[in-house]
Amino acid sequence: MSGEIRMDWDRASRTGVAEAVLCAGKSGAQIEAILSEAMEAGRGLLLTRLEEDRFGVLSPSTRARIDYDPVSRTAILPAPESGERLTISVAIVAAGSSDLPVAREAARTLQFHGVEPTGIHDVGVAGLWRLMEALPEIRRHDVVIAVAGMEGALFSVLAGLVRAPVIAVPTSVGYGVGAGGRIALGSALSSCAAGLVTVNIDNGFGAACAALKIAGLMRQGR
Amino acid sequence: MSGEIRMDWDRASRTGVAEAVLCAGKSGAQIEAILSEAMEAGRGLLLTRLEEDRFGVLSPSTRARIDYDPVSRTAILPAPESGERLTISVAIVAAGSSDLPVAREAARTLQFHGVEPTGIHDVGVAGLWRLMEALPEIRRHDVVIAVAGMEGALFSVLAGLVRAPVIAVPTSVGYGVGAGGRIALGSALSSCAAGLVTVNIDNGFGAACAALKIAGLMRQGR
Amino acid sequence: MSGEIRMDWDRASRTGVAEAVLCAGKSGAQIEAILSEAMEAGRGLLLTRLEEDRFGVLSPSTRARIDYDPVSRTAILPAPESGERLTISVAIVAAGSSDLPVAREAARTLQFHGVEPTGIHDVGVAGLWRLMEALPEIRRHDVVIAVAGMEGALFSVLAGLVRAPVIAVPTSVGYGVGAGGRIALGSALSSCAAGLVTVNIDNGFGAACAALKIAGLMRQGR
Amino acid sequence: MSGEIRMDWDRASRTGVAEAVLCAGKSGAQIEAILSEAMEAGRGLLLTRLEEDRFGVLSPSTRARIDYDPVSRTAILPAPESGERLTISVAIVAAGSSDLPVAREAARTLQFHGVEPTGIHDVGVAGLWRLMEALPEIRRHDVVIAVAGMEGALFSVLAGLVRAPVIAVPTSVGYGVGAGGRIALGSALSSCAAGLVTVNIDNGFGAACAALKIAGLMRQGR
Amino acid sequence: MSGEIRMDWDRASRTGVAEAVLCAGKSGAQIEAILSEAMEAGRGLLLTRLEEDRFGVLSPSTRARIDYDPVSRTAILPAPESGERLTISVAIVAAGSSDLPVAREAARTLQFHGVEPTGIHDVGVAGLWRLMEALPEIRRHDVVIAVAGMEGALFSVLAGLVRAPVIAVPTSVGYGVGAGGRIALGSALSSCAAGLVTVNIDNGFGAACAALKIAGLMRQGR
Amino acid sequence: MSGEIRMDWDRASRTGVAEAVLCAGKSGAQIEAILSEAMEAGRGLLLTRLEEDRFGVLSPSTRARIDYDPVSRTAILPAPESGERLTISVAIVAAGSSDLPVAREAARTLQFHGVEPTGIHDVGVAGLWRLMEALPEIRRHDVVIAVAGMEGALFSVLAGLVRAPVIAVPTSVGYGVGAGGRIALGSALSSCAAGLVTVNIDNGFGAACAALKIAGLMRQGR
Amino acid sequence: MSGEIRMDWDRASRTGVAEAVLCAGKSGAQIEAILSEAMEAGRGLLLTRLEEDRFGVLSPSTRARIDYDPVSRTAILPAPESGERLTISVAIVAAGSSDLPVAREAARTLQFHGVEPTGIHDVGVAGLWRLMEALPEIRRHDVVIAVAGMEGALFSVLAGLVRAPVIAVPTSVGYGVGAGGRIALGSALSSCAAGLVTVNIDNGFGAACAALKIAGLMRQGR
Amino acid sequence: MSGEIRMDWDRASRTGVAEAVLCAGKSGAQIEAILSEAMEAGRGLLLTRLEEDRFGVLSPSTRARIDYDPVSRTAILPAPESGERLTISVAIVAAGSSDLPVAREAARTLQFHGVEPTGIHDVGVAGLWRLMEALPEIRRHDVVIAVAGMEGALFSVLAGLVRAPVIAVPTSVGYGVGAGGRIALGSALSSCAAGLVTVNIDNGFGAACAALKIAGLMRQGR
Repeated sequence: MSGEIRMDWDRASRTGVAEAVLCAGKSGAQIEAILSEAMEAGRGLLLTRLEEDRFGVLSPSTRARIDYDPVSRTAILPAPESGERLTISVAIVAAGSSDLPVAREAARTLQFHGVEPTGIHDVGVAGLWRLMEALPEIRRHDVVIAVAGMEGALFSVLAGLVRAPVIAVPTSVGYGVGAGGRIALGSALSSCAAGLVTVNIDNGFGAACAALKIAGLMRQGR
Repeated sequence: MSGEIRMDWDRASRTGVAEAVLCAGKSGAQIEAILSEAMEAGRGLLLTRLEEDRFGVLSPSTRARIDYDPVSRTAILPAPESGERLTISVAIVAAGSSDLPVAREAARTLQFHGVEPTGIHDVGVAGLWRLMEALPEIRRHDVVIAVAGMEGALFSVLAGLVRAPVIAVPTSVGYGVGAGGRIALGSALSSCAAGLVTVNIDNGFGAACAALKIAGLMRQGR
Repeated sequence: MSGEIRMDWDRASRTGVAEAVLCAGKSGAQIEAILSEAMEAGRGLLLTRLEEDRFGVLSPSTRARIDYDPVSRTAILPAPESGERLTISVAIVAAGSSDLPVAREAARTLQFHGVEPTGIHDVGVAGLWRLMEALPEIRRHDVVIAVAGMEGALFSVLAGLVRAPVIAVPTSVGYGVGAGGRIALGSALSSCAAGLVTVNIDNGFGAACAALKIAGLMRQGR
Repeated sequence: MSGEIRMDWDRASRTGVAEAVLCAGKSGAQIEAILSEAMEAGRGLLLTRLEEDRFGVLSPSTRARIDYDPVSRTAILPAPESGERLTISVAIVAAGSSDLPVAREAARTLQFHGVEPTGIHDVGVAGLWRLMEALPEIRRHDVVIAVAGMEGALFSVLAGLVRAPVIAVPTSVGYGVGAGGRIALGSALSSCAAGLVTVNIDNGFGAACAALKIAGLMRQGR
Repeated sequence: MSGEIRMDWDRASRTGVAEAVLCAGKSGAQIEAILSEAMEAGRGLLLTRLEEDRFGVLSPSTRARIDYDPVSRTAILPAPESGERLTISVAIVAAGSSDLPVAREAARTLQFHGVEPTGIHDVGVAGLWRLMEALPEIRRHDVVIAVAGMEGALFSVLAGLVRAPVIAVPTSVGYGVGAGGRIALGSALSSCAAGLVTVNIDNGFGAACAALKIAGLMRQGR
Repeated sequence: MSGEIRMDWDRASRTGVAEAVLCAGKSGAQIEAILSEAMEAGRGLLLTRLEEDRFGVLSPSTRARIDYDPVSRTAILPAPESGERLTISVAIVAAGSSDLPVAREAARTLQFHGVEPTGIHDVGVAGLWRLMEALPEIRRHDVVIAVAGMEGALFSVLAGLVRAPVIAVPTSVGYGVGAGGRIALGSALSSCAAGLVTVNIDNGFGAACAALKIAGLMRQGR
Repeated sequence: MSGEIRMDWDRASRTGVAEAVLCAGKSGAQIEAILSEAMEAGRGLLLTRLEEDRFGVLSPSTRARIDYDPVSRTAILPAPESGERLTISVAIVAAGSSDLPVAREAARTLQFHGVEPTGIHDVGVAGLWRLMEALPEIRRHDVVIAVAGMEGALFSVLAGLVRAPVIAVPTSVGYGVGAGGRIALGSALSSCAAGLVTVNIDNGFGAACAALKIAGLMRQGR
Repeated sequence: MSGEIRMDWDRASRTGVAEAVLCAGKSGAQIEAILSEAMEAGRGLLLTRLEEDRFGVLSPSTRARIDYDPVSRTAILPAPESGERLTISVAIVAAGSSDLPVAREAARTLQFHGVEPTGIHDVGVAGLWRLMEALPEIRRHDVVIAVAGMEGALFSVLAGLVRAPVIAVPTSVGYGVGAGGRIALGSALSSCAAGLVTVNIDNGFGAACAALKIAGLMRQGR
């Protein structure tokens, strides 16, 4: 099995975002091996899409050392030292309570990198007053991550109201033609609001990484 | 050719909406024949999707008797007598100026049946204040026909704000994944706003017919 | 968790349809919290897509207070007082017995709002006499909700025979190319019968809400 | 160029249907060459999808010898002798006048093989009385070819009413989600009426060939 | 529940094929009720897509009276008397052993109607000699039902070799782009072999019904 | 026509990006009217997707006042005064020469807002050395806009090599399964390189707007 | 059951690749029967897609004679004698550790035919240095099998760097728009690197067979 | 414009296939510039997808120096010296005469690299005898390029009959569900014949390049 997994430990310095492990499709043994390598190397690690039953097959000593969250299916092996702090403020705005697992994946990714986001939930556009009420709070942030499934109307409405870059995360929440998140994704891509960008369906991790790349830019003191 | 076209003149009394002629795919000769039959029978007729070049091949005498609108590609052969009046008020709300041909097809269909709608245009959600400004006017109407392409976020926002039945008409306006209107249609169908109904892409005619069916219900004196 | 769910109690007065809770994707704890908030506020509530096993994890006291129907996967927390009565008559016409869960979701939504619909079942067009036999009964209603999967031919046939507005609910009943309801939905959208409107696949709830919006219009005494 | 085209003159005796030439994608020179070979061999030939402009580039002498129909885009080089007669009666039932080119392609294919079909047109289900009126006539035939675009509801309704085998020909007539004929095809495939078979979109030729194969069976005197 | 299911007992005399019950989506109670009605009426009945676990919940007395086959998921309640015999000979040709459940659904449907088909299996075109070896046997039959998944090349090869009408049944056997049967279906529809007709994916029942309709034609003594 | 178009002049101050006019689907008269309104209001304006023939129908005096580029199909009505300068540096990296129109749409959008981007072209991954050669130059920029069609492999390779935020613009360049840009878009969304964000196919304008939103963030002095 | 399965033992001599058994969709009894036939005939056999639970229902004596690998879901019944040796060298290059089951299916297929491949794993392009590091090793091989899911950028990068024929195997690894492998497949097909060929999603077996066909060519001494 | 196009002249030595220019999406000026650069560098060049009207806008002197073929839309600027000869024999087998442009693109690509292929045309499987007749000739070649549209059954039949590697080129020839080549492509990918590989729809160039890569392998003297 040696040689099957090659960690890209250098990724953070090269791209501004540390390597993370997408656990979907990996066996328990593979995940265990990756964590061992990280612990031996004295490095922190973020694991995503780690289902509860797969977490359960890890060795007790490994489980004891990582912080697992079943809602977002993420696990964090804390990094020993954290280095310089990022100074970005990020709002994570979610349309409905079914979108929370994805929103939390984004939040956990930011936290792993030392950024504590503000969560604003259940502001779907069917009750527009809820979004309007939260707008002053949202506008105080540097970057907005918008999380929505179904028709994804939140993306356009929000992007038309704030100056901050808005990163859309379509979710697979929905049924009928909305099942799987294709319509929410299409709404983000076809938005009439200029400057909206998007990541893959349910990719809270990716949206957070994009926010971190922007944060790195701000840190460069320009 | 006789026997190839059978008009369903009885449709209005049976379904509340008069037969109309979808001209796409019909030859000039077929359209001419249908109009002749209608004129001989002393009946009015609505023609949709009548492209300007096909209108041009009709005989001058026929062209003189019908009211043609190139923007909506509709032609109206006026009905000699109009019977009882429908008393419904309809707002046609369009997101962008590219949606006007479809909005006008809906308007012309209503006009053919004796209903004069109110048009409210260019109220896409990227500039939400425009919709908010028009909201009191929109709320004065019995039925709202919402016309939008691209991501179709207008449908959900509008349906969450008014009591009237909202009929969505997705348009084929858009490009990339939004081309052809599939995303706008999907947004209407996946909407988080309850009670929204939809018709086919670019089907302004159908939305107007649905409004007319509701109007018929109101006329029944309930 | 506070702040994660914001009920839009005002929705009924704003849009004519009370907020309902789509339980798919929500945890038992989230559903329990929503019901608690409703009970404390002295409000009725409709829950849809509540699977039997998720209903089972609610607390016994909560389960005792709600009326759960496993076929339609709906639960109703009755509203203490009902206010003015809606006076619309609705027929729910279903093509096959496999369409009943969706038909019943529509029926339960109407009942929650005080409207008792008439159910007409197993009238698929392969045996057209069954639909013809039921036609006089169907024609007595103000609004028709048509529920069909597979090829959805019922929508066009029905809409060509009645004056009432017809709301199509395509169902996911079918296999091969018909699996998931895309063909039935496409049939509703592409119908040659003018004035037919549609909602999302399996969205009996949405069709009922549209009927309620029309009912609200009739109540306004026009 | 010799060797590029190999006619399968033996096909009729092997499969019961003579080889025909699908002209789409072929150059005028290729079509001319095929016709020359047929004329030299003293054989009849059916050409389909021969657009008017491509017919125009054929040599005058070739054009003079073939019977061209621009509506169905078919050309027939008559067979010198016809052999034994097929004794099948076929009804071609078309939903709308836009479906006529496809219906005529089926009719021309049957005529080339010596079968004169009965055409019944404009019997879409939105005005069901038209189909009902024609039903006794339709029922007199051995095989029914049903031609419809849009939602294709005609297929199921018809197949539920007649004993004859029904061959569906979905057409590309339609717009929005119905554009291109996918929904009509899906309706034929998902039909709740048992025993319905289908051919490709706009394939009037193929439906006629299937009828001819059934006719061959009947000729075998069983 | 009365009124929810209306059997169309007259279907056989109207369309030449008896009503059958598609059990997918029906509850055990619904299936039990249908069988009871059939037994009381002294009628035979064919049930399709009856999964083994749903068969298991039927009452022992009902199970004792029906002939259940788990491979094809069909059950037959035998008809008391059979009436006149159909005299058609049908070959069911299956490409691979994974296609057998669908091939057997077709066979069982024919048997229920008194026709005993000939099964020819494992003749996929990757080893063409197997098909060639079976060709003389296949050619002895009036109608050929061809069953294939994956790329469905069998349909075209077979239809180019026999005079009999060929009815394609694409199956959902396959993976990657072939998963679900869409490619096999597309191959049947796009076939370069004229006169091939097709039914829905996995619809062995429908193919058999089409063969029975042709059989009815032959019985009429023409 | 008044009332049909409502400019959202306030958009720049609200969202950081000025309103632009998507000319696709708009008539020459509509575009002329919009430009008149802008000129009267003393405002600059960016027009996108303005085809050469539509530009040709504008009045000579209007044409004289705008800077039109046929390759990118953009027109710029210069803004009288420019206000504070944005200080971001942007690299626009294009995979092939067929991607240039889209790359130039991004460049022109940035130029309209006062940002002069660096263009790096023809660095597709089939000749990886070209990208490697340009890498030091690319790495000098704050934001990277990557433009690629076909399989879009450039997005992942680039995002794995630079610290800057990378905004993917999939183009419709390609044929077969790559036609229309769906595969390039899918590659951007499914990328194994974290933090990559994307906009709609051919949406060079949108990518530039996202860069401008990030620029706004940097201007805020953090 | 006899007659249901016809092995094509002659396939190796006809096509250069021995028949293998795709176990998906086959019952345990069918697989047992095939293995019995092979053992009686004294032949080796490769089984693919043999899930662990289906392997478990085989008889103990059969299980004892075959070499089963649960990761690749393959089983090998060893061939008694091996004949002449193939002299090709094959590199199997996999992008991520989730792609290993498919890579191993390819490896096992090669091993069954007497070719021992070199495996190079975890060289996804997000960390390009890993691929570059392995490049000299990869370049030493005659044929390269590239295995990747998600966006499949590895295919183009690799094919632009080596002289050997590259056979792409897209995998179903991915989520959102990348789920199921369609994007990875599309990337292989749309690649800007000339000469890349592909097989179906997850078809490690097929890629190995293509390599074996090339090996056969080399054996022919040209 | 300098810098917009960077030729990868080194590609042949790196990958075994010379760089070619895909002209679709390139302007006449860009193509002219590329040709000038090649002529100045004394290099040969292959241009694909060069439409006749775009060839027409090149300068007369350029046109005089290149060999243009309108059927395959390819142009060849001959290479001054050819180096060592490839010794592979390639058969290009095309199903129908509409597939010839794609077959010829493959042939021209091989000819540019010094390989003269054998063309075998019009051997579609609907008349299987034609393929069988040509089989001995086909079997004499090292590599087979199979070109087919519609249902693409030729791919599986052929791959089951020959030892040579078979490279499928699906073409966009077809209509209805077969339009655009998706079904033919799917047939190649889902083939039951092991070892078949495929390239993109209409990519005759790519198939030839794959054959050249195999030829390079053979040249290496193994």
